[in-house]
Parts: sequence; C-alpha cells; structure tokens
Amino acid sequence: MVLDTPAVQRLVEALRRLPGIGKRTAERLALHVLTAPADEAALLSEAVQEAREKITTCSVCQNLTDLDPCAICSDEQRDASIICVVERPAGAMAIEKGGAFKGRYHVLHGTLNPLEGVGPSELQLDRLYKRIQDDEVREVIAATNATAEGEATAMYLSRQIDGERVKVSRIAHGVPMGGGLEFADDATLTHALQGRTSI
Amino acid sequence: MVLDTPAVQRLVEALRRLPGIGKRTAERLALHVLTAPADEAALLSEAVQEAREKITTCSVCQNLTDLDPCAICSDEQRDASIICVVERPAGAMAIEKGGAFKGRYHVLHGTLNPLEGVGPSELQLDRLYKRIQDDEVREVIAATNATAEGEATAMYLSRQIDGERVKVSRIAHGVPMGGGLEFADDATLTHALQGRTSI
Repeated sequence: MVLDTPAVQRLVEALRRLPGIGKRTAERLALHVLTAPADEAALLSEAVQEAREKITTCSVCQNLTDLDPCAICSDEQRDASIICVVERPAGAMAIEKGGAFKGRYHVLHGTLNPLEGVGPSELQLDRLYKRIQDDEVREVIAATNATAEGEATAMYLSRQIDGERVKVSRIAHGVPMGGGLEFADDATLTHALQGRTSI
Repeated sequence: MVLDTPAVQRLVEALRRLPGIGKRTAERLALHVLTAPADEAALLSEAVQEAREKITTCSVCQNLTDLDPCAICSDEQRDASIICVVERPAGAMAIEKGGAFKGRYHVLHGTLNPLEGVGPSELQLDRLYKRIQDDEVREVIAATNATAEGEATAMYLSRQIDGERVKVSRIAHGVPMGGGLEFADDATLTHALQGRTSI
C-alpha cells in the first residue's frame, strides 16, 4: 500500500509532529496532499519554507515578526515601562486580540523546567533583565500559563525582579467570562475565591 | 501581529485547505511551524514535495502508488477477475487493512455528479470497461460510499456493466460490527433489515 512507501511514511511522520495531529489524522492529511491538485501541494510546501525564511524573532522581545525590531517594540505609542512576559508567541497574540494591553511583551519561548535542563540561562532571562534596566520598566506582568511550570516561572521572576522600582504582577486566574460556575474545575474556583475583589 | 504578515497568511491559507483544518487550527499549526526547530519545518516542506514527486497513480487501477503498475495490479496472486470499485485511494486502503479481499481495485477518484459536471468521461469509466473486457472480469463490486452520489454511481455501473458474463454487486450496508442498535441511524437500520440473511 502507498502508505507503506518511504516517501509517504516520511510525509506522515512530518505531519504527525504538528500539534494535535495523531497517526490516523496524519495519514488522512497525507492522502489529501497526494490526491489534491498539484499546485495545492506545491503551495503548502512553499508556504512552509517561505514563512520560515521571512519570519524571525524580534531581537528585543523575542516575539515572532517579519521586521526587527517588531511592530510592537518599535511603536512609540506603546508603554515601554510595562512588560508582559508570556511563554509563547501565541500568548502575546491572544492578549493582543483582546486589545486592552498597551505595554510591550517579552516572549520566553518556554518555562523554567530544571528536570528538563531549562534554567534561567536557557530562557535568556538576561535579555529581560537588561530591558528592565534600559527601559526603566515599572511593572512586569507575569502572564505565563496557569500550569506548575508557568507558576514556578512567575514566582522565580518575581523573586529576581520585584523590588522598589519594579513591581511584578501576575494575571488573574478565575472563572472565565460567560462561564457558569458548574463548568469550572476546583483549582479555578479556589483561585477565583482567593482573588475576589470588592464591587 | 505576525499572523497578519503575508508570508504567514499564505501558510495559514495553505494549511486550511487540508481536510478538517479550520482557521483557528491552521493558525495554531502555523505558529508551531514557525517556532519548531528549523529542520522540522524543512522536513515538512520537503516531505510534501517528495511525496508528490514519488507517488503517482497506477495506470491500470488508478490507485496511488510508487510503482507503475502498482503492487496489487502486478501481484499474480490477486484475482484479476474480481474488481472492487472505490471512490478514493482511502477506500482501497481501508479494505486492504481488513485483509479479506483478494481481488483487485479500481479507483474512480470521485463519483458521478451531473450538477458539478462529473460524468462518465470525467471519471474515465472507459478504463474500467476496458479492464473488464481485457481481464475477463466476472464480478465488479461497487464499493462506493453510502452517500447519494455513491449510490447513484453504483447504480450507473450496474446498468452499464451487469450482464450475462459480468455480475455487479454492492457491498452490504448495515449495523457496524460491535455497534449497538441504538447507535445506528434510521437509514442504516432500514438497510440492515432489508439486507438480512438467514442464519
């Protein structure tokens, strides 16, 4: 069968590396790539290559960008004294879609994870510290994910950075807007109660 | 944002053409392609290109193959007098996985669909007729899908081919093995009752 040929196996393997794509889905996608019009497959191959060539990481905030420094880092309207630290570019994009944040970002491309050998130097935290110094930053918002690693990274940043001049804050965790209490898990509800505010 | 750059938009568009991939998923996959190690992205791009270059359609049965004629059409152990007609390569693969069928295949790469301009000549049914003549075929199994178009194509093949020498049969439709009756839809149950066999 064609799925057993080396060329198709390599394609299935490459597709399986994409997030959320298992073996069955990868096989289905591979068959589509093989039976689609030739230009559609060429387009996919070229688009992957072109995107990798044209998109780089910003030398200031390490977010993905086609310009260096990125549009946000070079936008004078954005408040350089507030830095929102996120794990991945997707986090910064999610906050940008919200449109409420007017400061700048810093993308770690990971979290502290001593067991996997990811320490402060692997995350190049020196770059963040340098920005805090150079841009006279007042506040660092630790917007890492609400996972054990994300929380630990936020705690570490707080211990390293928090001081008289710079405040480190953490984004709020609680019940999502529009979500019923019955759909929230225990940890979220505990956070929501602890983080209650007066109205 | 990087998702708004032309290079990434082209990548998202190319990924969206894959079956079952919507805009949000395409954006997530694109971000993965951009943040993954460079060789992983290169591998994907090259695998798509290589698979398209190396895989062709069999000149006999039109199934996907890296050899022409394909392994099944050139296997003397397979019964050339029984042809199983499927809509797509995925159908032939599914039947091969079952392992019970010892005949050969014919892949239509579509179904008759007059409204979309797909007639007998677009499906190159002449090729199938020629095989039936040349290989002294005794039986054609219409294994097109259980959709309106698949049923119509099976009926058309039956009218064109069924005769004294060649029989046209249709795969059975009924309750899936291991499936409870309560999960089967009305049409499936109707088919299952009509197609009942004595035990």
